Order: sequence, then structure tokens, then C-alpha cells
Amino acid sequence: MSRAAVLTSQVSDFPRWYQDVVAKAQLADNGPVRGTMVIRPYGYAIWERMQAELDARIKDAGAQNAYFPLFIPESYLQREAEHVEGFSPELAVVTHAGGKDLEEPIVVRPTSETIFGEYMAKWVQSYRDLPLLLNQWANVVRWELRPRVFLRTSEFLWQEGHTVHATQADAAAYTRRILHEVYAAMMVDVLAIPVVPGLKTPKERFAGAAHTLTCEAMMRDGKALQMGTSHEMGQNFARAFDIRFLDAEGERPYAWTTSWGASTRMVGGLIMTHGDDSGLRIPPRLAATQAVVTMVKAGEGVAELAGGLVADLRAAGVRVDLDDQVAVAYGRRAVDWELKGVPVRIEIGPRDVSAGTVTVVRRIPGTKTPTPVAEVVAAVGEALSADQAALLREAEAFRDSRTVDATTIDEATEAAGTGWARIPWSAVGEEGEARLAESAMTVRCLLRPDGSVPETEDEPDLIAIVGRSY
Amino acid sequence: MSRAAVLTSQVSDFPRWYQDVVAKAQLADNGPVRGTMVIRPYGYAIWERMQAELDARIKDAGAQNAYFPLFIPESYLQREAEHVEGFSPELAVVTHAGGKDLEEPIVVRPTSETIFGEYMAKWVQSYRDLPLLLNQWANVVRWELRPRVFLRTSEFLWQEGHTVHATQADAAAYTRRILHEVYAAMMVDVLAIPVVPGLKTPKERFAGAAHTLTCEAMMRDGKALQMGTSHEMGQNFARAFDIRFLDAEGERPYAWTTSWGASTRMVGGLIMTHGDDSGLRIPPRLAATQAVVTMVKAGEGVAELAGGLVADLRAAGVRVDLDDQVAVAYGRRAVDWELKGVPVRIEIGPRDVSAGTVTVVRRIPGTKTPTPVAEVVAAVGEALSADQAALLREAEAFRDSRTVDATTIDEATEAAGTGWARIPWSAVGEEGEARLAESAMTVRCLLRPDGSVPETEDEPDLIAIVGRSY
Ligand SMILES: [Zn+2]
Ligand SMILES: [Zn+2]
Repeated sequence: MSRAAVLTSQVSDFPRWYQDVVAKAQLADNGPVRGTMVIRPYGYAIWERMQAELDARIKDAGAQNAYFPLFIPESYLQREAEHVEGFSPELAVVTHAGGKDLEEPIVVRPTSETIFGEYMAKWVQSYRDLPLLLNQWANVVRWELRPRVFLRTSEFLWQEGHTVHATQADAAAYTRRILHEVYAAMMVDVLAIPVVPGLKTPKERFAGAAHTLTCEAMMRDGKALQMGTSHEMGQNFARAFDIRFLDAEGERPYAWTTSWGASTRMVGGLIMTHGDDSGLRIPPRLAATQAVVTMVKAGEGVAELAGGLVADLRAAGVRVDLDDQVAVAYGRRAVDWELKGVPVRIEIGPRDVSAGTVTVVRRIPGTKTPTPVAEVVAAVGEALSADQAALLREAEAFRDSRTVDATTIDEATEAAGTGWARIPWSAVGEEGEARLAESAMTVRCLLRPDGSVPETEDEPDLIAIVGRSY
Repeated sequence: MSRAAVLTSQVSDFPRWYQDVVAKAQLADNGPVRGTMVIRPYGYAIWERMQAELDARIKDAGAQNAYFPLFIPESYLQREAEHVEGFSPELAVVTHAGGKDLEEPIVVRPTSETIFGEYMAKWVQSYRDLPLLLNQWANVVRWELRPRVFLRTSEFLWQEGHTVHATQADAAAYTRRILHEVYAAMMVDVLAIPVVPGLKTPKERFAGAAHTLTCEAMMRDGKALQMGTSHEMGQNFARAFDIRFLDAEGERPYAWTTSWGASTRMVGGLIMTHGDDSGLRIPPRLAATQAVVTMVKAGEGVAELAGGLVADLRAAGVRVDLDDQVAVAYGRRAVDWELKGVPVRIEIGPRDVSAGTVTVVRRIPGTKTPTPVAEVVAAVGEALSADQAALLREAEAFRDSRTVDATTIDEATEAAGTGWARIPWSAVGEEGEARLAESAMTVRCLLRPDGSVPETEDEPDLIAIVGRSY
């Protein structure tokens, strides 16, 4: 496979473009078992950076990391009726272990509300133990019939938070805090993806939840991608797992629980929000490699100049790599760096040494600027900051240009053929959701007229965002 | 469960002491499925710190992180005869997924040589692609009949490195680099565990390996714990998965592969190396919480003084927490901090405010020193540094005091009843290993007379370390 081969263009075949980018930027491969994926080092480095940024915000929100088992007794899932109904078709089941058939089949976790519930019931004794705020980084398995790398895979990596609260109000406030301060903040500020935080309709809720909040993003084909969700479970899991606490009056009411998750699906969202016909474009704040100093050819003083710039940039806090593979044609390497979407490339050739200038190539605006060596560190710093902001602005402008106001289901269906429709929720309802489903469309989320996130779907004057989705 | 309950003492019942510490320091619980464990936040924080320290060293050794699927086709394991023979009795098998019986059963990875092998064969084309140095952080499953939290669990967390090299010499050098620069360096410098790096005998090798290197540690009951292993696979997996490369002469020889891993078992090793009858003792460099500022009682100026010390310590780079739970009796909190092994505790009571002194309590030497407020930051810094060194010295002295030279299997068997025996390998051999097994003892590793790690078990004058083990 020549990496210099041109990608399929986005307009000609978006799904094929996506596959090409995943393969040629060496992000991932399909695994041998249906729907699984091998995340290659460049793809995994993106995920590691996402993890670090989310993990810091999760800890700031007061949650502590823990780790719960991969294997869940089948009986646990059956304790919450909607939950088991939602997940049964996607379960992978271990029936044989240690050379014997098992008495009770074991489920490979599709999500961990049930097993967290079982233990949180033991750990929560009194109101003094609340809130109990836990999170885990883990793999989960949901069998996929139509898998797609990063977007829908039989195994994926994620974080899942699980919390217990004394009151419904406290649980609701925490789901909103996670939605805004963890997910939306990280996605907007780091991924430069202008997600829309909103409330899911009852039809689109998580299996077993009382309310589901979501961050929705528009991809460059106009479809929506759910980037992260935060669920109020009401007392459903508290009842199923007997999570109760001694309150100040000496009674033992059921507690209120939440869960919230974001996964490797975000990598797919990143590709499809910012990628172009030359490959990935990684937002500078996210990029594990923000700049690469490239030796175009060998020559007197080239290696010294390149090494010096790497040292200067690193000292200035830039995450920088050196490309000294002068045995490989430069054109091929340049195409590869474009594919990989590294924000800034500094090209150094033999003539640059005597001229005292290098070329600063910015992936996001696509500019090439001859720059005196002494000004490179400042120029790179400014480029990283400007290009982070530019990516967000560009994605916002794209989303807004593909979003249309509609008043009827028919209008919404037409608009959502190429993007999103905004339609009064009162004009949709359950019946409207069924009609949208005929066109493979859904209500992605509900918003208040001012754009804020409603508490329930029963508030007046809500707006529904309608679109096709991944 | 009262946390103030005294632990079982180490001398009266070491396994019970271990269980007590795990439960009362809230490190982990048993999971619902046999042999699985729930790692609680305090235990997971220890693991996160171990991960960070290992991960940095793995990256310094040039390996890149990736992620391979949990699920492996059963047929992959069968391609390497010794490998499948070694792991078959421990496999968990998925036979049912997505509502259907599967045509080919799927194995939940017990380790990932086979699936890495399949992909590395695709990615390695020519000698220019070598060495290929990969690592993953993952969960693995090995069904355990006699599980023990952290030490032997049906699911555990680990890193597994997998590399491909052009020559046997390069592969061998890399296994040694990982053994010394990653495992031994991190275990000695951070965990303060004086591990002995050595070579496994053919009987004790990893299933499918040509040579296995190990870091062995002595626990406080005199038993050995294998803390990490690094394997030369020879060309076994290269042949099984057709990992070949175009060399400079235009031929396509098989490559040489390695693998190496360290797991949550290290948490068990940490507990059993440094713990005492009051609980854990966490080495300062590892500790997620190095110091805790404790308000003994509420009182005029106590909160201000405590807050100021927390800020000063944090500014000095100390990982510090505040304990302001004055509603809980101080004795109970003190017992809890001892159990959790936080290296330094700073006690502040109402009288301390006027006196301008606080009490610095050091968990490792067990000292309590009245200290002027202005000197606390310097005192804590010195304590952390001195106590890190003291833990290592103490563990070394203990190990040496429990290690005896032997010349016969009978002598070795007697010595290894309470610790380790050092015996000439020429006096053991395969037959001696069989005799040791009758006393539940094994050769933990082979060393050269100067203590360095041999290349093969056939070198002259090797010393065998004999012991009981976990
Ligand atoms: Zn509602
Ligand atoms: Zn050998």
C-alpha cells in the first residue's frame, strides 16, 4: 500500500474517505473477530491524549477512578428490566472457563451499571457516604452487526462514571456538571468540536435511565455523532440493587444514581469533524505531536539546525518530533505528515541553512511561510494557538450552515437530508419520531429556546434537533 | 466493619494479615464471578501511579502504545504448540454472541502474543521496519482455581510489550533492556522493592518462550513473588505467524520476537514487601498522597493553619491532602491513615496554633516530631527522601537475612522453608527441580556468580535461587 496514494474525496464517497484516512494515517485496522479493531500507535496516541484531558476534568469534578470486573453474572443484568431488554441482543456470553462448562453463564460487560450497583449498595451506609463518585477506564463489548472502526465496534474503550446521591436534585445536578464541565468543555476546548449539549427524548434514552443528556456533533457529511452521554437513573438501579442509606431522620430511603460515558468513538468524531481530502487535521491542544521538524535533504548544517530547532521548541513547551528520514523522498514524507494532520511542519533544506530561514507549513490553514530561524519558536506558538481557534470556528460555521429551521416533519425530513433541522418539539412528539424513523432520522436532542439544556422533555417551547446519525 | 479493628499480625497468620490489609485499607474486594476483583479507589490510585512510572520508562525504551482486541479466535492460539498447551486450562471461552451461537469459539485473551503476531506479520515488510516495538495496557483473563486478590486473579490488569527484531542478538538485548531499565529500575527506585533480576530455568519459562527473564522479590513471609517477566521468543511466534522481513541481501528470513509484562500483582508485592502490623507503608515516590495535613480538632486558627500548610506543601511539589473531618474521632482517623500507609501525617490541634508548632508523624520510621510551622515544608521533604531510602534498605536487609547458601537439595529445601536458598545450579538441574517441587519449592531464577543475569542456563558456575512462591 503506497501511502502517497490520494484519498477518496469526501464529496465523492464520505464513508470510503473515512476508511481511507483510518487506514492510510495508520489509525486502526479491523480485528480478526467480527467488529473488533486494532488501534495502531498513531490512533492510540490520540486516544491517550483524550483520556488525559478527560481524566483530569473527571478528577476535578470529584470522581475517583476504580476498576470493576469484565465479567458480570448474567443474573445481575436481569434485575433491571429495561436495561436487560436494551442490552440482551448485543451481549457476548462466556459459557466455558477453566476447562469446564459454567453453571451460570457470564456476560462480558456491555456497560457496568449492574456490577457497580451491587458494590455501591455495600459501600453506601449513611448519608455521610454520599455522594459516592466513581469512574473507570475500561473495555466493553456490544456485539455489532454493522461494525465501523471507532464508531461502532464490538469492543471499544471508554470511561464510565457511576455515582450515588442522596437526592434527585443532587443526581440531576451532577449529570449536568459532567455534561458541561467534563464532556462539552473538553470537546470544545481541546477537540475543537462545537458539540451541542441537550436532552434525549424518552425514545432515545439509555436503557434504564430516567433522563439522558448528550453532546451531539455534526460531521462533515452533515450527520450527527453522539460524542458522550450522561444519564440520570432515577431510583431504578437503586431499587434493583438495594442502594439505600441512613438519612438524618433515621430512615433508609433509596438513593439516586447516575452514569456517564465517552469512548473511542470520539476518535471517529475527530476524524469526521476536522478531516479534509488530504487527511486528518488534529487540533493543536490535542495533538501528541504538535510540530515536526523535517529535514528535506541531508546537507551541511541541516541536522544541526534541525536539532537546534527541536530543542528550542521543546524548551518552549511544544510537543515536537524530528523527521530525519532523508533516505525517503521528501514528497512522500510530506504527504504522510499531511495525512496524519500534525498541525505544524518545519521544512529545512540545504539552502535554508545559509539563508537563515526555514519554511513553516501549517496544516490547518494550509499556508507555507518562509520564516527566519530566530522567529520560528514564536511563529509556531502563534500558529498553534490561532489554528486551534480556527478549527473550532470552521466547524461551527459548517454546522450552522447545515442547520435549518423547520416547522413540520416534512420540512425537517428534507433539511436533515444534508444536515440538521431545528423544529418545535411540540410539532414532533412520539408520532413524529416514528415518522422520522422511516427516513432513518432521529431527534438528536432537545434544547430550550435559549439553547440551554432542559430538565425534562415536558418543558414548554422546546426545540428538537433532527438529523441522520452514526 | 470498624476500620479501627486491629489487623491480624503478620507472624500469627500472614495470609490473613494480607486479606485484612486489603479489606481495611479499602484496596479491593472480591468480584462476583470466581476469582475476579473490584479494585477500589485507594488501590486503583496505587496502580495508576505504577502505570505512570512504568509507562514513562517503556516510552523511553522506544516502545509505542497500541490496543489489540480482547477477543482472539481460538485457532490463533493453536498455532504455537507450547503456547496453547500452557494456556488451555486457564481459558475463558465465548461461545454465544449477539443472540447466536458462534461458528468458531472466541477466547478471551490470556495474553496477546498470537494476535500481535498476526498483525506484526502484516506491518513488518523490510528490515527498515525493524525493530517494531509495541506495548499495550489491558485486562487479561486466566481462570484461577485458587484465586487471591492482586496475586492470582481470573482477570487482571497489566501491560504487555511485544516486539519484533531482525536478529536474535537484538531481541535478546531488548529483553534485557526492559528487565533492567524498565522493570528493575522502576521497582527498585519507585517501589523500593529490591528485586533480583535473573534467568528462569527451562521448566519455569513462559509457554512458547526460548528464554524468560524475571524480577523476583522476597515478601515478608519469606516467599518469592515474580514481579515482572521479559521473554525472548526466539523464532517460535515468527514461524507460527509468518513474521518475516526483506533483509539487505534480498532474502526473507523469519524475525525474532519478544514479550514482557508486569501486572496488578505488583500491588500485592508492594503490600507484602513493606506492610507491617499497622497496615500499608507506601514508598513516598509511589504514593499518590505523600502527606496528609490533619486537623485533630476544630479550633481558633486550626483550619487556616492547615490550609496554609497544604498550600505551602503543594507549592513545594508534595502530593498532599487535607483531612478536615473533625466530626470523626481523631484516633479513628489516625488508625486509618496508618492503615493506608500515607508516608507523612501532620497533626494540628488547637494548642498548636498558639505554640506555632505542629506534629510531624512519619509512618515508615514511626516517629512523631514537634516541628515549628516554618520548618514543616523542609522537614516533610527530608522525611520523604529519607524514608524512601529507608524502606529499600529495610527490605534489602530482610531479604539478605532470609537468604542462605546451600550446597545440596536437602539444605536448600530446609533454608527455603523460611526464605531463599542460593545453591549451585549444577547441584540442581531438572532432577533437582523435580525434588524441590515435592516441597512446593521452585528455582526462582539463575544468576551468575557476580549476581548478573546469565544469557543461557548453560553458562558455567550459575547460582540458583530457590524458594516458595506466590
Ligand atoms: Zn422525563
Ligand atoms: Zn536456553
